[in-house]
Amino acid sequence: MPPKDLISAAKGQHPCDLLLNHARIVDVFSGRIVRGGVGIADDRIAGVGEYPARQTVDLEGRFVAPGFIDSHVHIESSMACVTEFARAVVVRGTTTVVADPHEIANVLGTEGIRYMLESAQGQPVNVFYTLPSCVPATGMETAGARLLAADLEEFFTDPRIVALGEMMNYPGVLQGDPDVLEKIEAARRHGKPVDGHAPGLSGRDLLAYVAAGITSDHECTTAAEAREKLSAGMHVMIRQGTGARNLAALLPIVSKRSARRLMWCTDDRHPHDLLNEGHIDSIVAAAIRGGVAPLTAIQMATLNPAERFGLTRLGAIAPGRQADLVVFSDLSAPQIEAVYVRGQLVARNGRPMPGLTKPDPGPAAPCMNVNLEALDFAVSASGRRVRVMEVVPDQIVTRQSTETAPLAGGHLVSDPSRDLLKIAVVERHTGSGRIGIGMVRGFGLQRGALASSVAHDSHNIIVAGVSDPDMRAAVTAVVRMGGGLAAAAGGELLAGLPLPVAGLMSVEPVPVVSAALDRLLRAARGLGSPLTDPFMTLSFLALPVIPALKITDLGLVDVNEFRHVALFM
Amino acid sequence: MPPKDLISAAKGQHPCDLLLNHARIVDVFSGRIVRGGVGIADDRIAGVGEYPARQTVDLEGRFVAPGFIDSHVHIESSMACVTEFARAVVVRGTTTVVADPHEIANVLGTEGIRYMLESAQGQPVNVFYTLPSCVPATGMETAGARLLAADLEEFFTDPRIVALGEMMNYPGVLQGDPDVLEKIEAARRHGKPVDGHAPGLSGRDLLAYVAAGITSDHECTTAAEAREKLSAGMHVMIRQGTGARNLAALLPIVSKRSARRLMWCTDDRHPHDLLNEGHIDSIVAAAIRGGVAPLTAIQMATLNPAERFGLTRLGAIAPGRQADLVVFSDLSAPQIEAVYVRGQLVARNGRPMPGLTKPDPGPAAPCMNVNLEALDFAVSASGRRVRVMEVVPDQIVTRQSTETAPLAGGHLVSDPSRDLLKIAVVERHTGSGRIGIGMVRGFGLQRGALASSVAHDSHNIIVAGVSDPDMRAAVTAVVRMGGGLAAAAGGELLAGLPLPVAGLMSVEPVPVVSAALDRLLRAARGLGSPLTDPFMTLSFLALPVIPALKITDLGLVDVNEFRHVALFM
Repeated sequence: MPPKDLISAAKGQHPCDLLLNHARIVDVFSGRIVRGGVGIADDRIAGVGEYPARQTVDLEGRFVAPGFIDSHVHIESSMACVTEFARAVVVRGTTTVVADPHEIANVLGTEGIRYMLESAQGQPVNVFYTLPSCVPATGMETAGARLLAADLEEFFTDPRIVALGEMMNYPGVLQGDPDVLEKIEAARRHGKPVDGHAPGLSGRDLLAYVAAGITSDHECTTAAEAREKLSAGMHVMIRQGTGARNLAALLPIVSKRSARRLMWCTDDRHPHDLLNEGHIDSIVAAAIRGGVAPLTAIQMATLNPAERFGLTRLGAIAPGRQADLVVFSDLSAPQIEAVYVRGQLVARNGRPMPGLTKPDPGPAAPCMNVNLEALDFAVSASGRRVRVMEVVPDQIVTRQSTETAPLAGGHLVSDPSRDLLKIAVVERHTGSGRIGIGMVRGFGLQRGALASSVAHDSHNIIVAGVSDPDMRAAVTAVVRMGGGLAAAAGGELLAGLPLPVAGLMSVEPVPVVSAALDRLLRAARGLGSPLTDPFMTLSFLALPVIPALKITDLGLVDVNEFRHVALFM
Repeated sequence: MPPKDLISAAKGQHPCDLLLNHARIVDVFSGRIVRGGVGIADDRIAGVGEYPARQTVDLEGRFVAPGFIDSHVHIESSMACVTEFARAVVVRGTTTVVADPHEIANVLGTEGIRYMLESAQGQPVNVFYTLPSCVPATGMETAGARLLAADLEEFFTDPRIVALGEMMNYPGVLQGDPDVLEKIEAARRHGKPVDGHAPGLSGRDLLAYVAAGITSDHECTTAAEAREKLSAGMHVMIRQGTGARNLAALLPIVSKRSARRLMWCTDDRHPHDLLNEGHIDSIVAAAIRGGVAPLTAIQMATLNPAERFGLTRLGAIAPGRQADLVVFSDLSAPQIEAVYVRGQLVARNGRPMPGLTKPDPGPAAPCMNVNLEALDFAVSASGRRVRVMEVVPDQIVTRQSTETAPLAGGHLVSDPSRDLLKIAVVERHTGSGRIGIGMVRGFGLQRGALASSVAHDSHNIIVAGVSDPDMRAAVTAVVRMGGGLAAAAGGELLAGLPLPVAGLMSVEPVPVVSAALDRLLRAARGLGSPLTDPFMTLSFLALPVIPALKITDLGLVDVNEFRHVALFM
């Protein structure tokens, strides 16, 4: 609305559009509760007080806080397109996300970023993006795109781009890789911060990483690590995702004094968790249960991320700020009862309001460039012992071990009796026909195979199974769905989830995606897997920036050494 | 230095230029003290730890903190040019100032802003500016320039311009004045905040002022006022200047939780105070004496203003930040022993290092457009009672009263027996010959006159005296000096201080200016004035944005009514 009209509304000269009256208002600036009304004019907050208004909602003493902000999330991890993700999180009180579209960028490059920017329009959540800094994540795999500094330049001037995204390539930073430094310099030139990603980085390496201009981290897993990063000048995003759950470990660092540079993020949350656990609301509630002062927990969900990303119109209830608000009854256990975005009631009691806009996700480019005829998982034995990726349940790191190779007819085979499965990454971007093959322990399959086109960060097709035909059946199903997840056994598809947007995202609502995933997990359990979510586990086994042993279409990677290693010793 | 070299220094691969070793390092992020060394490479901090270095300074357990930041200051109030101001404050530990050059802009317009930008180059202090938003302060006076939104536009892209300066024209904001709103909108467009100036503004008017996009205030005089402004979303700058001293009143609002949006400023400090009391160092020390936790007081002098103005390379000791540091021994009573700016030792024990660069202040445009022949202070009586400006000692507000007019020969005269002096404002910018005349009580002069070309904010020549010839002598001295301060009696100049830069600033060192001022104050006391600093008092009597009764070249102004009023009732 024109500033003049807003000023006039704030003065009470014209009635507000909406007054949320008899509220206990969370003042995130001073960390206190103020009793009164919140006057809203069009999409903005006019002021706090008793305002004349066209519509008045009596909150009967309920609390009203700024809408919650997820400071770092990959929307793709919800397996929902932006439209469905937004509908799923806004009902939980998330009104703003800072998303890094690096999953889709690894598949579709700048076209993927543009797709996400277009998808952000008209959503009931403010969707900001950080620019993917590491596409591909490494040179040890084949991604769908390679984004150099020059490719990113055009995006920096877009006001929806609020930072350079997580700089996972810390070796590149520490070695002074010119393209890496140029990306950081471009962010600086445009006045935008750079997000970090530096699990376990410490001492001088951490200092050098920060010296390069990187000012946040969301990978802390211990309080000591978070304290060191805070002191080095980083904003610390405390992550509570589906896979990585760092809240409990990091609660000790939260104090009134340090909190200003702390905030919450989910990084990756799967549809099941979004539906059943929630989003930032669940982290705020858990933090409060864990002993964090409620107002501090809310500051970390609102003002702190807004300040970190220069979102001066968000994150607080104050005149001129966007009217993004959540309503709840119990400050010690907030459960979101109503959500307002840009002054409109968008959700009540966990459900979107009828008539809430649902922007069309739009068509995404095809992304399955695989010749199914040429699919071949055979590996001739070339030694007696093989390297094995050891899954660590509920973690994205692996351990590595060596085992006597299970062989049959001179070829490597799976050996379910020792829980040793063949695992393969099928390149899907360039049609090269490349397949990287390894061995994995921990999936526990006694028959069948699981395949997925969600395989961080290059998102080739990853598959693990007890036989080559089962692996082929699972991969074939994924390709035929235009991307997705599949469980197959005996040449038959047991369950599947199509992810036609870049092979990463569905266009169905999150409950539909979640139900399909549940069927897939049941199928996987039926095949013998003891893992909580074998598809999630699978999706991280191709990520060669997380220790210790990973696999890409180019073969096994020893992440600690940052080099390819042979399957056979 | 190139990022690659800095990264390499942070890793310890190349020796740092300087290591401040065995320090107790103030970590403003976490609010704690860390023991160790600070490695400095060129002008930047490489990291905290034990670094190899070309030069090592053993701090023997002393504290090292980020250099202090004055979040709002008018350099012109020091009566020193930028070069001499910088030398005076850097020895006290101030390494960055955010200055509003609105005094010089009122005299020289955009040329004055450019002069200040040029003067900022090569200083041992980082000098940033806010763009003067209210030149002239009102339409009730004649200034040397009128700066519209279009005049400011070109400056916004300069990285040394960090905000739109204090928006004193709150009536203009509240009435939606198009040029005022356009200035605010221009700041928003350029991603720069807007500083406020809203003494006593409260309730819906305050909310409307904030709704317009104004996000700081340095005019709070009570804790309640500051709390209201904090809750409305403003950063509160706690001011401890020469005239306005708000520290004691505002200390109750400082808490660990609220402190993040609090910072210190001096606004206006006269040379005597800079020399004897100090600068931000004196406020930090006073705050600590007043019960503020030392680390909070230091955060308010460093990280908080840096964050408010987006100065991401300043305000903290962290890798990549500029090596602006202060050293002191006692955390409970910090007294600055050494100051480093951009990695160079610039001051020790209150003295600048020999060889410290002293940039040439450069020539300023002439600014005394007054026809001395035509100077005439005569006023014919047109009633029996006159309005009188009542000076409130040590305040910039006045009260107003009415008195029986002292008359002689049908003309208004001064009456020292009732402490009623004639006061006049002589227009000096356009050569109009305009003189506004009033009566003032509180100067206590028994003979002579005091005149000054420092007269906020239009800086015409203001003069008060016991006779017209004395007033003429004082004004004549001011004009002949090319601007300045003068005390005259019996047709003789008793003391004078030339201020050739815009009639506001000397090119002499602060001690020289201070000594000249002392002579002027002694002269004023000799003439009978009981005021602490009658020249400072004088300089605010022409400021028609501070209540209650003020005088401009266009006559008396009732500030509460915001209109001109007649001298005779």
